[in-house]
Amino acid sequence: MATQRLASWTKSLEFADLPDDVVRAAVRSFYNWVGCAIGGSTHPATTIAYQCLHPLFGAPTASLLGHHEPRKADPQHAALINGIASHVHDYDDTHLDTIIHPTGPVASALLAVAEWKKGVTGKDLIVALVAGIEAECKVGLAVWPEHYDVGWHITSSTGSIGAAVAVSKVLSLSTSETAHAIGLAATQVVGLREMFGSHTKSFHPGRAAQCGLLAAIMAQGGYTSSEQALEAKRGWANVVSAGKPDVQQRLATFTGTADGTPNENENEIGNGNEATTLGLPSAQAGRWEVLRNSFKPFPCGIVIHPIIDACAQLHVEMAQKGVKLADVTAITAKVHPLVLELTGKRTPKDGLEAKFSVFHSGACGLLFGKATPSEYEDSVVASAEVIAVRDRIQAEIDPTLTADQTVVTLTMADGQTLEKYVPHAVGSIEVPMDDAMLEKKFIDQCSKILSNAEAASQALWNLESMDDVGTIATFR
Amino acid sequence: MATQRLASWTKSLEFADLPDDVVRAAVRSFYNWVGCAIGGSTHPATTIAYQCLHPLFGAPTASLLGHHEPRKADPQHAALINGIASHVHDYDDTHLDTIIHPTGPVASALLAVAEWKKGVTGKDLIVALVAGIEAECKVGLAVWPEHYDVGWHITSSTGSIGAAVAVSKVLSLSTSETAHAIGLAATQVVGLREMFGSHTKSFHPGRAAQCGLLAAIMAQGGYTSSEQALEAKRGWANVVSAGKPDVQQRLATFTGTADGTPNENENEIGNGNEATTLGLPSAQAGRWEVLRNSFKPFPCGIVIHPIIDACAQLHVEMAQKGVKLADVTAITAKVHPLVLELTGKRTPKDGLEAKFSVFHSGACGLLFGKATPSEYEDSVVASAEVIAVRDRIQAEIDPTLTADQTVVTLTMADGQTLEKYVPHAVGSIEVPMDDAMLEKKFIDQCSKILSNAEAASQALWNLESMDDVGTIATFR
Repeated sequence: MATQRLASWTKSLEFADLPDDVVRAAVRSFYNWVGCAIGGSTHPATTIAYQCLHPLFGAPTASLLGHHEPRKADPQHAALINGIASHVHDYDDTHLDTIIHPTGPVASALLAVAEWKKGVTGKDLIVALVAGIEAECKVGLAVWPEHYDVGWHITSSTGSIGAAVAVSKVLSLSTSETAHAIGLAATQVVGLREMFGSHTKSFHPGRAAQCGLLAAIMAQGGYTSSEQALEAKRGWANVVSAGKPDVQQRLATFTGTADGTPNENENEIGNGNEATTLGLPSAQAGRWEVLRNSFKPFPCGIVIHPIIDACAQLHVEMAQKGVKLADVTAITAKVHPLVLELTGKRTPKDGLEAKFSVFHSGACGLLFGKATPSEYEDSVVASAEVIAVRDRIQAEIDPTLTADQTVVTLTMADGQTLEKYVPHAVGSIEVPMDDAMLEKKFIDQCSKILSNAEAASQALWNLESMDDVGTIATFR
Repeated sequence: MATQRLASWTKSLEFADLPDDVVRAAVRSFYNWVGCAIGGSTHPATTIAYQCLHPLFGAPTASLLGHHEPRKADPQHAALINGIASHVHDYDDTHLDTIIHPTGPVASALLAVAEWKKGVTGKDLIVALVAGIEAECKVGLAVWPEHYDVGWHITSSTGSIGAAVAVSKVLSLSTSETAHAIGLAATQVVGLREMFGSHTKSFHPGRAAQCGLLAAIMAQGGYTSSEQALEAKRGWANVVSAGKPDVQQRLATFTGTADGTPNENENEIGNGNEATTLGLPSAQAGRWEVLRNSFKPFPCGIVIHPIIDACAQLHVEMAQKGVKLADVTAITAKVHPLVLELTGKRTPKDGLEAKFSVFHSGACGLLFGKATPSEYEDSVVASAEVIAVRDRIQAEIDPTLTADQTVVTLTMADGQTLEKYVPHAVGSIEVPMDDAMLEKKFIDQCSKILSNAEAASQALWNLESMDDVGTIATFR
């Protein structure tokens, strides 16, 4: 049965089982998460949460990332606040098959517990992180897309389960305790999509981290739950998937074990072959979801990414050729229809609206060669220089393009043109961000907050050999 | 729109608006809750939660009820643990229209905040408690019964909203802040029915209390949420009601204002007349749900209540007439078919199973004249005296009886009979527990734990004139 299989897979997973590319994907995911959590630490959603909750903090054993003056909280509040910070710029990672942002809920819980308990190595953290990410993505795949369509924010509604699995792993819970932790997490379903556009969107992964952490701690203490929490008739998958008929089958498939262990539950009709391909992975077989994780190069809706990509490339080319924007008489972008439907805001009034403006985003690409959180600050959105370029961008719908394609053309006064075609935006599965790009993103986010962002970056790339991940709290 | 109306109703509700019977119902609900929380304070679910979480407690400003040595926690943990304790014996109150146990989530949050903030009077507490109970029952009515049928534990899934409303009221949040608190609470949906039978069932109202408390504190600090959290397309009511088609209409009806204010939202088609009858109440009009709250005389499933009632009455009659159980040759109970379906356990092996045994429960009624948590302790279930009576009880299905009716007949060796017909079990709306019965229940639960349960009882009956409800923490 799904809950038991997930618990027993979690218990038996070892660092030695992880293929090299899985370790690397986990390190990259964690690296990106730390950068986002530090980058988001100064956002009002994060600082309000800190201000109103710090009178309730317990013993300060876990760090809030991104502060010159060490700020510590108890692990539950650290998980909440770091989780908020890591999601608040919409800059975190994406498991594209489910659009889960997987690392936020899991890492926020895990780092807090690791620092509290002390002596957790980089390898301990990596194996627990992988367990948590696999858990949330596998249960997410079982209920996708109906679950998201009906209105659940799938990052947090699966995130509490992922966080519970990860914390159970790092605390060495027994299989039975892990099953109870999964049940305690599954009964706390966080996140309605209706909250998008408010601070509460970023509350979701933070609260999911906290729910999973609490679940694991209580299960470790002997608190009992259902051991069929995921698959039972009135369990998680059925209740949150809006009556989707094949949810049991999918759950069996995605939580099948790679050795083809038959499903004991007669309600589960997944077969061994599918489980071998799609189920919980092992060193020999199964699909590692962490390998399908992607990273956002730009802190905005994914349909704008191709235009920013093209404009940033044109920024470089213009510099090389000595072309200035003042020489450009027309800027046109051919785009997929969804781009204008979702992000056609002509005159965004602040940073939040600018995230839904292909015109502002393209202007930043042309002017600055990038679109980081800095380019979505209110002052940049209101600057005359940006507005002048923004207002000259024309977007034309081209139904032959896919959502991750664009063609941007600059026309000079003399009739010459510069054109950039983007077949797949950077950050997609086809053109992933490489380590250098992730590092630039990290440094961009952290250098305004840390005095030595380079040292933090270097330490994190060496996560695998870290003796105590509590070191991460000492980044300044 | 529902969220705004509920927020603005909450903000404007005053103690002076509460009819006398509403105040009395609120005092009785709170009185019963304190007794249950003290009675449940020694249950393993409560003590495990305390043991594993106390290392994480913040500054000790809120009491855990029911301990000789004062035990304090931060308000979030106090809300969680008192909430667990108050539900763990299945002995709390019931709003029969929705089977919500309304006081647990609301009072657990409220007392913790009141003690933390100090200076909250009995009247302040009563008005906030009524606001919270009305909120959870009204939103519960909008989604009942589909919401429960699909698998949500409606006590906790509405409880976080009730707790947020109550804490918003007692902290004097503005209407806008209250709306954001409702949104933050609505996005945390706690409680799957699959957890029934494990400790996690009692976790639900405790966690709901904590979620609502957190929501109000964060909203007070300026954290934003959706202001259409309840009624939006992907808001709470639609997402949790399994696609029920008329949920918007019901939500509009039950959150309508009694002055017949028309609904601004075109999606809401509730009319003024229904809102006047069923909507959010005022001194002049509307239905107060707290008046429809009932109290359990016995800590077990409600279908056994008629038999216990009949047997306890026969216990008194036998004593009056000098009849001994040894003289009784046959014990027969005519029951509704559901009784044997749900509670037909012939040989319960422990206290938890005994709650599903009409035979054990009837035997306790005949032998002891009561069925309190003491009668469901493992030692009582295993006692030879109880087993001897239990095994002599015959239950016969009588489809002409309703679920709250029974006829119990004792036949003596000489052929004479004693018969007791219960048309409505005690604790039903028709035969409510009166104050004396509530007091006996309170004393039964508390006298083993407090050294002066009578003084605590007296203080609580005078809740309305209490200057600072923090006094409740001093009960020993």
